[in-house]
Amino acid sequence: MRNFSFYERVSRAFNDHSSLSRLVVLFTVSGGGLLAYSESKSYPGVKSLGSSEDDNKKKRVVVLGTGWAGTSFLKSLNNSSYDVQVVSPRNYFAFTPLLPSVTCGSVEARSIVEPIRNIVKKKNVEIHFWEAECIKIDAENKKVYCKSSQDTNLNGEEEFVVDYDYLVIAMGARANTFNTPGVVENCHFLKEVEDAQRIRRSVIDCFERASLPNLTDEERKRILHFVVVGGGPTGVEFSAELHDFVNEDLVKLYPTVKDLVKITLLEAGDHILNMFDKRITAFAEEKFQRDGIDVKTGSMVVKVSDKEISTKERGNGNITSIPYGMAVWSTGIGTRPVIMDFMKQIGQTNRRALATDEWLRVEGSDSIYALGDCATINQRKVMEDISAIFSKADKDNSGTLTVKEFQEVIDDICERYPQVELHLKNKQMHDIVDLLKDSKGDVAKESIELDIEGFKSALSQVDSQMKNLPATAQVAAQQGAYLARCFNRMEECEQNPEGPLRFRGSGRHRFHPFRYKHFGQFAPLGGEQTAAQLPGDWVSIGQSSQWLWYSVYASKLVSWRTRALVISDWTRRFVFGRDSSRI
Amino acid sequence: MRNFSFYERVSRAFNDHSSLSRLVVLFTVSGGGLLAYSESKSYPGVKSLGSSEDDNKKKRVVVLGTGWAGTSFLKSLNNSSYDVQVVSPRNYFAFTPLLPSVTCGSVEARSIVEPIRNIVKKKNVEIHFWEAECIKIDAENKKVYCKSSQDTNLNGEEEFVVDYDYLVIAMGARANTFNTPGVVENCHFLKEVEDAQRIRRSVIDCFERASLPNLTDEERKRILHFVVVGGGPTGVEFSAELHDFVNEDLVKLYPTVKDLVKITLLEAGDHILNMFDKRITAFAEEKFQRDGIDVKTGSMVVKVSDKEISTKERGNGNITSIPYGMAVWSTGIGTRPVIMDFMKQIGQTNRRALATDEWLRVEGSDSIYALGDCATINQRKVMEDISAIFSKADKDNSGTLTVKEFQEVIDDICERYPQVELHLKNKQMHDIVDLLKDSKGDVAKESIELDIEGFKSALSQVDSQMKNLPATAQVAAQQGAYLARCFNRMEECEQNPEGPLRFRGSGRHRFHPFRYKHFGQFAPLGGEQTAAQLPGDWVSIGQSSQWLWYSVYASKLVSWRTRALVISDWTRRFVFGRDSSRI
Repeated sequence: MRNFSFYERVSRAFNDHSSLSRLVVLFTVSGGGLLAYSESKSYPGVKSLGSSEDDNKKKRVVVLGTGWAGTSFLKSLNNSSYDVQVVSPRNYFAFTPLLPSVTCGSVEARSIVEPIRNIVKKKNVEIHFWEAECIKIDAENKKVYCKSSQDTNLNGEEEFVVDYDYLVIAMGARANTFNTPGVVENCHFLKEVEDAQRIRRSVIDCFERASLPNLTDEERKRILHFVVVGGGPTGVEFSAELHDFVNEDLVKLYPTVKDLVKITLLEAGDHILNMFDKRITAFAEEKFQRDGIDVKTGSMVVKVSDKEISTKERGNGNITSIPYGMAVWSTGIGTRPVIMDFMKQIGQTNRRALATDEWLRVEGSDSIYALGDCATINQRKVMEDISAIFSKADKDNSGTLTVKEFQEVIDDICERYPQVELHLKNKQMHDIVDLLKDSKGDVAKESIELDIEGFKSALSQVDSQMKNLPATAQVAAQQGAYLARCFNRMEECEQNPEGPLRFRGSGRHRFHPFRYKHFGQFAPLGGEQTAAQLPGDWVSIGQSSQWLWYSVYASKLVSWRTRALVISDWTRRFVFGRDSSRI
Repeated sequence: MRNFSFYERVSRAFNDHSSLSRLVVLFTVSGGGLLAYSESKSYPGVKSLGSSEDDNKKKRVVVLGTGWAGTSFLKSLNNSSYDVQVVSPRNYFAFTPLLPSVTCGSVEARSIVEPIRNIVKKKNVEIHFWEAECIKIDAENKKVYCKSSQDTNLNGEEEFVVDYDYLVIAMGARANTFNTPGVVENCHFLKEVEDAQRIRRSVIDCFERASLPNLTDEERKRILHFVVVGGGPTGVEFSAELHDFVNEDLVKLYPTVKDLVKITLLEAGDHILNMFDKRITAFAEEKFQRDGIDVKTGSMVVKVSDKEISTKERGNGNITSIPYGMAVWSTGIGTRPVIMDFMKQIGQTNRRALATDEWLRVEGSDSIYALGDCATINQRKVMEDISAIFSKADKDNSGTLTVKEFQEVIDDICERYPQVELHLKNKQMHDIVDLLKDSKGDVAKESIELDIEGFKSALSQVDSQMKNLPATAQVAAQQGAYLARCFNRMEECEQNPEGPLRFRGSGRHRFHPFRYKHFGQFAPLGGEQTAAQLPGDWVSIGQSSQWLWYSVYASKLVSWRTRALVISDWTRRFVFGRDSSRI
């Protein structure tokens, strides 16, 4: 019996017709010249937990984790024949590439997160979400044990067990301390949204603490010494953000201590950003030197106490102690305990991550998939299968392989063993046949015939080019989307397999194996300077890359809401600077 | 040696010339039709701690607290002859009237705070800020003992002592539990920004917890039972916000549990919002009933356990236990321990707050002022001074008072004892002389003559109208600005006192006493409905008041930054709804 007011009507229109709201935001965004990408999904309906009566017939897919891999999987899954259950201690997806920006308030934490329930609201797939941590995977009985991550008063009801038909493990990794003493107690990590928020508070804390009366200048200097351990993209970006925050905003509010601030970046290797092109590394090191950020390469941290960090110089083995006020530890990733436990169960010990095959299936577990930072693809070596490949290719069982016979399986080989193509590229060969030719010397292509030994020697080098994929958001997102496409077409591909030949079996693999496509990587260096390494070794450094960075990140954000928020955060920072309230 | 890029130049221009940025935002804001108010302060320079050499000559003013009273004092102070030191555990000012909006994400926490260092950056007054808590006031030696509120590793250096010439106590109050057992352990308060953030997380927690599998419906119902204790403006506004959050946003994401949600508002008195006009109370109670918010009046909470709240009905004394999932306690304010300790020192025991005179000076302490929620003005009674007034007015010492004699001191009486005017208004008299006439019966005004007994009886009723000021932001802000004006003109007024006659001494008071001007009060009731009680008993309820509320709050925010942020938050909520990520 209520009359809807104008406000309510417009508001409903906006909420119900997302296209309308998008139009408005599109206008906003394109006004800033930033939009590069658009999405056309809509989520009109919601299903309730018990509504589906054919639950029993549906295969249950349990997804662990709502990071890049898990969310990307859920977003791309559109096969209604699954009952999907998601277990994660975080009820949101976080756009982690912007975490370093959150540490200093260039972007707000809430602007980079989107509720997972919002993301998975879909027309046709039934997806349930449980906010809980997976504490044990029981592969034998196809069960996962979960526990609510809340500090609840549920009297044991916070634990529950979920059965699965397929399990998708996308739990990510944790920070790796390399068992360095004192790190967990005294350093900040930068993996979760909460970490970034804590760092922000902690930076302000240091400034307030250093401003207190009755301190010696030495003590103030110690408190304002910020140490970043690890010269990878995260550590470098955080150092740059911190430098900008201090020099653009905090110096105005803390004039008495501004000259005491020091930022040190410790890197155990020879250079920072060593996964990037050398030009980028050199530019970054030079820029940091100009900015007064002290980059110490070849310094390995051996101990952290509450006031000092001890480092060991790689050259001479000298141990130095550096007084510090706040430290951020960002040296790479380690394995989560529950994953370690699971790896023990399935006999994968002494590994950094869960080994999967090229279809992201955990080795030794038929119905378990693993993707993202908690997994590595164990790329099959050509040499392991060399005899099988030979006999499969040698159709007439002559004991020798002609070029024609070989050409018939070339595509399958290249798909199954991507290192072959990489090897050719490296040797600057255009055709795989050149490899055979290479081993045979100067004969006409058509007359080449190889026996098994010749074949082995021709391909003996190809496996040397194998590289693990980096633990990045880009890889995880592509793996999630790939796996969802496999699940979407599971039945179809059972019947008409589309993958490469099974060299060690009969028939074909159901799916094409996962193939990573690298779209480039950014390294923001502060002061509106960004280095970008794009596909094809294209390197771009400077302000244009910064704008490219703005556009790409704005376009890649998960929802229109986060996109609008991040852009308004950038605008706010531009106009008003960053906020330094300690909340 | 850097070339400034276009971006940097524009950015600097924005930061340095605040007028420019204001222009831009003014455009933004007035585009939304919300601007009602503008500020023309600018903060170009900053002074450093040790820069002033005449520190020793300057009188030191120590301000405790950065809430409404303290911040308002600091903003209005512009006399450079003081050395001002501010001690507060919060390095920001929070716009507390928007705290209920923060609890449900209608407005972000960061949008309502402004760093105090930003606020006090002034041309001419030297203001230092220490982020610390005052742990003891030593009035005898004019010292305050402070302690850094951080969890520091400073080895005792976190404590320090500040001497003062004048002390301004503006520490606010804490939540009052009336010693009800279990409240501190199990209830949320809503006084600080952190409280609001915790409540927000807690609401989402309840929804996630209630969505877990393996719970009985009864348990789910308990978890989703939100109880608000206290039917004052804060409790009512929070209930309304929560109702909107649940019904506009959460029901879409938690469809399975949406029907189990219940909100109960417990009030010990007969009505909610009892400080408002009856029309507003009635409207609010009716609206809440329509919305399904269960308002239980006459219910006093006697005990809170982790899962149940026990209430006592005022009528029959029955004790009922209500299972609940989350409770917010908002029943009024209590005294902070450090204030209690100080009150003991100066002999003010058995009081709720520090008693001051009408000039905000703490009774019995010449150089200490107290304002805001931690203080109450102890309005002097006419009857206490009646003989002094009489003899002051009786210039010719005739023992009787003529109307002419009386008229000469009327203005001073009315200024010194504002209750007189209130009394006249209540009696619908236009002139104070009518009072005398009243006691004398029907005689000509000019011929009235009163002796001391007649004078006493004429004024015997005036003190009955005395009321304490409410503990609101409005009162605190006015007190801060008033006190700053006094400090600004301290020397001037020492020489030329401008206050009323000292009836018990000679000469005049230095300053006019503080006089509160009520500009009205809002009670947002959810669903874009707000009740407003404006001066002159003008009542407005509905959507127009909501827009008035938007405009007034936007205009009253402390900075252009917060104004822009709050307005963009409102816009965001309007377009995208509220976020339910648990961060």
